[in-house]
Amino acid sequence: MFTTIFKHKPLIHHLTNTVTINDCANVTLAVGASPVMAEDIREVEEMVRLAQALVLNIGTIDADMQAAQRLAASEARRLNVPIILDPVGAGATSLRTSFSKELSRLGCTVVKGNASEIKTLLGENGRTKGVDAASDEIMDREIIRAFARKQKSVIVVTGPIDYITDGMREVELQVGTPRLGDVTGTGCMTASLIASFLGAGYSAFEAAVHGTFIMGKAGGQAASEKGLGNFKRELFNAISLMTEQDLMEVVEHVN
Amino acid sequence: MFTTIFKHKPLIHHLTNTVTINDCANVTLAVGASPVMAEDIREVEEMVRLAQALVLNIGTIDADMQAAQRLAASEARRLNVPIILDPVGAGATSLRTSFSKELSRLGCTVVKGNASEIKTLLGENGRTKGVDAASDEIMDREIIRAFARKQKSVIVVTGPIDYITDGMREVELQVGTPRLGDVTGTGCMTASLIASFLGAGYSAFEAAVHGTFIMGKAGGQAASEKGLGNFKRELFNAISLMTEQDLMEVVEHVN
Amino acid sequence: MFTTIFKHKPLIHHLTNTVTINDCANVTLAVGASPVMAEDIREVEEMVRLAQALVLNIGTIDADMQAAQRLAASEARRLNVPIILDPVGAGATSLRTSFSKELSRLGCTVVKGNASEIKTLLGENGRTKGVDAASDEIMDREIIRAFARKQKSVIVVTGPIDYITDGMREVELQVGTPRLGDVTGTGCMTASLIASFLGAGYSAFEAAVHGTFIMGKAGGQAASEKGLGNFKRELFNAISLMTEQDLMEVVEHVN
Repeated sequence: MFTTIFKHKPLIHHLTNTVTINDCANVTLAVGASPVMAEDIREVEEMVRLAQALVLNIGTIDADMQAAQRLAASEARRLNVPIILDPVGAGATSLRTSFSKELSRLGCTVVKGNASEIKTLLGENGRTKGVDAASDEIMDREIIRAFARKQKSVIVVTGPIDYITDGMREVELQVGTPRLGDVTGTGCMTASLIASFLGAGYSAFEAAVHGTFIMGKAGGQAASEKGLGNFKRELFNAISLMTEQDLMEVVEHVN
Repeated sequence: MFTTIFKHKPLIHHLTNTVTINDCANVTLAVGASPVMAEDIREVEEMVRLAQALVLNIGTIDADMQAAQRLAASEARRLNVPIILDPVGAGATSLRTSFSKELSRLGCTVVKGNASEIKTLLGENGRTKGVDAASDEIMDREIIRAFARKQKSVIVVTGPIDYITDGMREVELQVGTPRLGDVTGTGCMTASLIASFLGAGYSAFEAAVHGTFIMGKAGGQAASEKGLGNFKRELFNAISLMTEQDLMEVVEHVN
Repeated sequence: MFTTIFKHKPLIHHLTNTVTINDCANVTLAVGASPVMAEDIREVEEMVRLAQALVLNIGTIDADMQAAQRLAASEARRLNVPIILDPVGAGATSLRTSFSKELSRLGCTVVKGNASEIKTLLGENGRTKGVDAASDEIMDREIIRAFARKQKSVIVVTGPIDYITDGMREVELQVGTPRLGDVTGTGCMTASLIASFLGAGYSAFEAAVHGTFIMGKAGGQAASEKGLGNFKRELFNAISLMTEQDLMEVVEHVN
């Protein structure tokens, strides 16, 4: 745990999917922040007012969740609560494409997706396959940087090399492992990690780098486990055992 | 498993949140009872008629779930099916506060919450932070006992010391570990454990003590594991490996 | 993983329950296929058009999910996307009984359930207890075969001996373990496994046999673990470590 960074236990409000909601709660706890999931439209604004960061994930979006995310995003913008958007499956269906574009235009602090999802937000035709990226997506980074500047968002493109930019600065991280794709929710959990750092007061760029780095590094530490049960257990072990000291490595990476 | 206690495999109907619903099902199986989750208003009453206990958990409450819980609670009351209420996040939003008060007034067999949640039900201002208790909540136990007597409910206040009372008798349990707060759902699972004992015919007070004790003791047994993945695995191991013999310890505690 | 069988990563669309949705996603990944869960009526048909197989599971059915399953099933039928139905709790409530009968009449490729659920579909009075079968259900196999022929579906009846028939051929598998009943979702996951083989182009009968065999064999491999945490971990390990080689055993079984 990052006991210094999260000593005030920032509350991370999640409006997220039912597939990985448990893992998102546990990964938030694993680093030392505090998760909450409250999705009724009658309470989302109240919960945003208590929260230090807001996660919007469209993985199992429906009309009620859309309404809740719109309200929560609006209240978060009003109060300067940082927002991270995870546009799961953007490009796969028109509902996901249009709603993730709508949310991204609200001015999210961080937008994190795989290459297909981010391409879709850029207006290109991402070849999203279900919720996973086509493996051979190639992206023009200048286009991503221009998008980041225009939206005033930090963009995280996860993949074999994770790419993070605020439009000016950029970082490539190659600490991950393809094994992270063998477990559902590692992308969603990365958003929870980024949100935790946002909630602790880190800048959008730093939070994006730290959260992405932690998932990648933990995946690398767990990757020697062949079985999926062991791999997932070790992934959670590695995240929960990481400390402020481990973040020195990525800081050097950035400088 | 408690093969003697649960030899008739009581059916425990859960109306609960999407965050920890899987863990609640597994913990019910781990002790030897049988979980079911059915939340459509067209079937909740039928399912209550098949069940030996009912869990009401408002962790991700919405209008549909509220309607289902009202119907289920009413049918359970009519048939004397014991009800355990877990007022997750009462005090955090007005929706949670008002609905958990409404449910508690229906006459639940057991009400289990952290100090902030129970304070909220008592009409005091609990300082619920998201779904976690403020750590320094101090409660007047005579007020809790009076509430238990008035509501005819057993009240369980979980925390560093778990406090259980039916208004006359009271038990303090100090077998737990702060590590239980590192995993989401340990509170929800405690409700499932209590419900299992209610479903097996135990008195409300005994069921509350046994269920709370099992989670605490299992947490203590798992606490030497530093990583979150290992800790959660050992928690389930410990619960599933506990037997009738282990409950002798808490019985001595009560007498 | 079955790297040859699933080299095209068939997309398996799940319309399923919130209790075991995470395990279903992970087990699909564990064998090398690709899970997706999208349940809004505005997108289910689009997602079916991208998918190679469709899972319909009524574990936590509600009106919205019913509408989504009807639309998805209809589109899948139109496009010859194979469908597997998991009629969770059929027989326990009239909603589950009537809706699972409705879905089964649509002409599902495979129908998988425990003895009580399948009996219910046959029009007999299954004695479903919550979502678990009464342990002493005895079924007339000629009735099952006749039902398979009439519906043009492969029927899988899980239990101490798993029984699989297309109305002409039949297979009994006795590789499982009662321990599989100690973890929630092993039935749901079996459906995901069968769907993965359907999505890879296997015949309905072969897919049903392979998927059922994998869960049984993995359960047997994990069964020496006494604690529930260890058992579930080893179950996922065993599934993810199985290869094409292991399927030779069941092929011999069939011939």
